Amino acid sequence: MTPAVRIVEVGPRDGLQNEKTQVATADKIALIDRLSATGLRSIEATSFVSPRWVPQLADATEVYAGIARREGVHYPVLVPNEKGYERAREVGVEEIAVFTAASETFNRKNINASIDESLARFSPVLERAREDGVRVRGYVSTVLGCPYQGEVPLADVVRVARQLHAMGCYEVSLGDTIGVGTPGKARDMLLAVAAEVPMPALAVHFHDTYGQALSNILACLEAGVAVVDASVSGAGGCPYAKGASGNVATEDVVYMLQGLGIETGVDLAALADTGRWLAGRLGRETGSKVGRALGGGAG
Amino acid sequence: MTPAVRIVEVGPRDGLQNEKTQVATADKIALIDRLSATGLRSIEATSFVSPRWVPQLADATEVYAGIARREGVHYPVLVPNEKGYERAREVGVEEIAVFTAASETFNRKNINASIDESLARFSPVLERAREDGVRVRGYVSTVLGCPYQGEVPLADVVRVARQLHAMGCYEVSLGDTIGVGTPGKARDMLLAVAAEVPMPALAVHFHDTYGQALSNILACLEAGVAVVDASVSGAGGCPYAKGASGNVATEDVVYMLQGLGIETGVDLAALADTGRWLAGRLGRETGSKVGRALGGGAG
Repeated sequence: MTPAVRIVEVGPRDGLQNEKTQVATADKIALIDRLSATGLRSIEATSFVSPRWVPQLADATEVYAGIARREGVHYPVLVPNEKGYERAREVGVEEIAVFTAASETFNRKNINASIDESLARFSPVLERAREDGVRVRGYVSTVLGCPYQGEVPLADVVRVARQLHAMGCYEVSLGDTIGVGTPGKARDMLLAVAAEVPMPALAVHFHDTYGQALSNILACLEAGVAVVDASVSGAGGCPYAKGASGNVATEDVVYMLQGLGIETGVDLAALADTGRWLAGRLGRETGSKVGRALGGGAG
Repeated sequence: MTPAVRIVEVGPRDGLQNEKTQVATADKIALIDRLSATGLRSIEATSFVSPRWVPQLADATEVYAGIARREGVHYPVLVPNEKGYERAREVGVEEIAVFTAASETFNRKNINASIDESLARFSPVLERAREDGVRVRGYVSTVLGCPYQGEVPLADVVRVARQLHAMGCYEVSLGDTIGVGTPGKARDMLLAVAAEVPMPALAVHFHDTYGQALSNILACLEAGVAVVDASVSGAGGCPYAKGASGNVATEDVVYMLQGLGIETGVDLAALADTGRWLAGRLGRETGSKVGRALGGGAG
């Protein structure tokens, strides 16, 4: 297994975007600054999608402008198209993330485009990013199952990941959007992609909908992955199963990595504290088991 | 990995014993009968400890007498001493479980005895069980950490497990009572014990206090274990961290095993349904993520 893992903290974007409770702009900024103070080096800060799609993140410009950027920390933001790219660049964004799904049906239902059309739409964004020296991270969702079509052919996952990498993404994050994966399938999927995209350019992104996220991460660590997405406090929930868990909690991932002797550079106590603070802002209990255990219980 | 796993369902005993809400005797009986109908073959039914210690299980005799015993299903009960053994035998118990801790401090604080004294106390029970043809399962708790002394020497875990096996336990369950373990340590512990006790005579018993249970189970499956303890609905909580999770939920274990292609013989939908039913009796949400996801959300 890798001696060190880079955590990509997605709570402020992927997490909050799926939370119903509106979080104040100042709290979002405080969240990101608290997270960077824990030692996290990649923090997805917000999304420059249309506010009509994601009202929670309508304050993307204010949030990005407000954070105290820390040396050595990357703050990628989600960008769906050129318009979003321009808004992001106006406020000084230096890293973006683009996204598509490995499931044809998911793409058609969500953005009314085929996989290939969706990739084509990114082309101009990726070209401009290259010209501007902006780093680009790529997300592939539904890599282990789709809420609409069920099974997703492994060949589609590999093809989409390979194309994102070929188009200039320095890193491709493989996402089990509905959390249905189990360790054997997760490992097989990762290894199939790694046959075409170098392992150091791959990240895994698991949801804990069926409680499998940590064991899937373990299986992928054993297969050689060294970048793991996670969301502090397990923020995010799951839009496909009411009341179900979504993003794996960063605290629980860091706890496992520490126990495995894998370096993360993250101060776990400070992270768990931040997770409980965020849960308070969201008006609920932390979604991190480590957060609950270390906090002496909020349940 | 093993092609098949036997789940030892501990919800009706280890689970309920740590639940504050008093469950009616009829509901306990219904729980056990529902569990046996899902295909589970080992169901720990109750405990014949003194009702003063565990008021929740004061109705052990009534519960055991009331269950509809199913062919091929084992219903072990916890027995602390000869008095408990006699009460259990009076109602026809054919399998018992005995318990001790790998931590000297834990034994001293809980039963005011050293490890060796605690083992000596079982001696007469194990002798009578042997004479009566009663099967005995042994529990070793605190195998990866102790709430009082912290670290537990691996040599103590191995010694206690070896002695329980030598004293006649057909199976020894290795329990991470406070849920602090992580996959590498869990695997190392299991392999250390397996060097002295045959792997087929070992079971693992993980608590999800820090969210690590499933990944610990995965690591132990990779090391060769084929018996896993779990508690439907995650019943049990954790007496050492208020609001924290306790026993790993059987539903989540079965989901992982199914995904890994490992046979359990358990009907997952029926099990998740039973877990939600039990949660209703306990007046809370199910502690199983699979239970929540399949149930369309009770959150």
